[in-house]
Amino acid sequence: MAAELRNDRFLRALRREPTDTTPIWVMRQAGRYLPEYRATRGRAGSFMGLATNPEFACEVTLQPLDRFDLDAAILFSDILTIPDAMGLGLSFEQGEGPRFARPLRDAAAIDALVVPDMDGELRYVMDAVRLIRNELDGRVPLIGFSGSPWTLACYMVEGEGSRDFARVKALAWNEPMLAHRLLDTIARAVAAYLVAQAHAGAQALMVFDTWGGLLGPGPFRELSLRYMAQVVDALKADPVSRELPAILFSKGAGGQLEAMADTGCAGLGVDWTLDIGEARRRVGDRVALQGNLDPSVLRATPEIVAREARAVLDAFGNHPGHVFNLGHGITPEVDPENVKVLVDTVHEHGRVIRGR
Amino acid sequence: MAAELRNDRFLRALRREPTDTTPIWVMRQAGRYLPEYRATRGRAGSFMGLATNPEFACEVTLQPLDRFDLDAAILFSDILTIPDAMGLGLSFEQGEGPRFARPLRDAAAIDALVVPDMDGELRYVMDAVRLIRNELDGRVPLIGFSGSPWTLACYMVEGEGSRDFARVKALAWNEPMLAHRLLDTIARAVAAYLVAQAHAGAQALMVFDTWGGLLGPGPFRELSLRYMAQVVDALKADPVSRELPAILFSKGAGGQLEAMADTGCAGLGVDWTLDIGEARRRVGDRVALQGNLDPSVLRATPEIVAREARAVLDAFGNHPGHVFNLGHGITPEVDPENVKVLVDTVHEHGRVIRGR
Repeated sequence: MAAELRNDRFLRALRREPTDTTPIWVMRQAGRYLPEYRATRGRAGSFMGLATNPEFACEVTLQPLDRFDLDAAILFSDILTIPDAMGLGLSFEQGEGPRFARPLRDAAAIDALVVPDMDGELRYVMDAVRLIRNELDGRVPLIGFSGSPWTLACYMVEGEGSRDFARVKALAWNEPMLAHRLLDTIARAVAAYLVAQAHAGAQALMVFDTWGGLLGPGPFRELSLRYMAQVVDALKADPVSRELPAILFSKGAGGQLEAMADTGCAGLGVDWTLDIGEARRRVGDRVALQGNLDPSVLRATPEIVAREARAVLDAFGNHPGHVFNLGHGITPEVDPENVKVLVDTVHEHGRVIRGR
Repeated sequence: MAAELRNDRFLRALRREPTDTTPIWVMRQAGRYLPEYRATRGRAGSFMGLATNPEFACEVTLQPLDRFDLDAAILFSDILTIPDAMGLGLSFEQGEGPRFARPLRDAAAIDALVVPDMDGELRYVMDAVRLIRNELDGRVPLIGFSGSPWTLACYMVEGEGSRDFARVKALAWNEPMLAHRLLDTIARAVAAYLVAQAHAGAQALMVFDTWGGLLGPGPFRELSLRYMAQVVDALKADPVSRELPAILFSKGAGGQLEAMADTGCAGLGVDWTLDIGEARRRVGDRVALQGNLDPSVLRATPEIVAREARAVLDAFGNHPGHVFNLGHGITPEVDPENVKVLVDTVHEHGRVIRGR
């Protein structure tokens, strides 16, 4: 039996219900800016050693909750676990981004891909979800997540990070049928992965579309949004995952919020290049919004952090449906004290707004 | 005496006057995708050796015009010539981006900056403009350019490229007065640089704001747009530069087009993440638009290149004020034959649109 949830602000905000104040969590809140994270990472030996060990993953997931009054936990993992489980061979070189030993280089490799076994290659993720949910003991809800089909395809075809991901875009231009077969396979894997996380105990689900913003409006709808919508539909077809709010976040695709809201997801992530009040006016009451402080603000003084956090809250205004977050992940140079200032300011000013 | 201009489509389009077809040029059209460029680059020894030698700069500026029916030439140079002339020591390491030997690390370094002498440290740029204008002999107009004040500040403070330019943003958050002194100095230098290029023979002027899109809406207006507006005002105060159309291009800042049009510039660059027809409806008849094909399309087949070029032209529609371009610079892997297909398709389909 799962413990009763003692702090449901985050889930209530995603359902656009009233809350006593604005909930906050921080993308990459379990990360290198925390000395205790770096210590666990050191014991794990490598990033993948950390991510694939449920005890280590649980430990780092809980670390920021012990320091800050956060309203949600997020599974510690990587967006590239699915292609790794598909056999592409993921590694993280020192100071570099992710790299696949066996990127997709031809149609045969794409057609050979199969949806991984959630109780097999990806069992370590589900074990981590179960362990974290148990250890959380009802403190705050647990967010499960995946990379978006398009974002996974970017890395799988390119083999590593890229400024423009021109190789995967060339595939999409020149061999659209093949690109769509690839995206469909990945979308089915992402859906199965998120459904399995829901069954293992995740209480909300988020899809990170890190590279959707590289696409023009037409290709975004065809290559990125369409397959996120397929994932949302699959989540609604399962009796467990259908009860969980799903959040879609396409960085740099602020022009597409209305179309993203049409997927029927519960919430949309918003990066810091939009005014979140303007974003709210555009999507109306259809979805909750999550965001959108510029992560670089956390490198400023505590006074500036508090001022800019209040400005985001004021921009959203006194309406239900706001989950405070950064507009992108927190960076390693940030002083943890500034995160405390951020979290406390959001809760304090969230109450002020509700009293207006 | 300068030769009479035989092809004025580009300048007419920037004035939103009718043209027989849509003019096109390509950002970074003198670049590594051309074997003749790579040959000249080899003889020059280094990128800076190429950029600082007027004969070499002239040679590579003209190369793409001999291959393709382009409607404008753009000075071959780099956006970082100004900070280099200010003493920061620019170099390009093999396969890396730009790097400054002496980045700005404190207030003293910022307050010591002076506007460089356009007939001194930057004379090589003006010599290149004069030589190219002479060699063009009226074939097409010559575009002069500069980096934007904000973009130059990004590199000057960071010392090199960066994913998030958190150091310069932290400066702007924590020491706004100092940041504004820096941006004002750079803006005065940029204005003097563009005015000098106008006097040397440039026929249009473009400001590249490569990193404006990293800023939220408020900081964009305060740190990027405000200083581009200062530059536009300075250009209007000079009897020669006031006659030249100025184009502003902030990559990734598509949400700010209306505010950018308010500067009184003649044209705005548009990246490929916007529908250019939608962009036109937003700015109306106030400015011309330049763009906006996704550069990755040039890695597709010639048929796709032609189809996507026609789609951009159709999206803009039969209205004056369109300069066709990519939404960002052309990349080294592109087959020059695809550029020929692009240029010829734009001219051909631009005529079709006008006949509708």
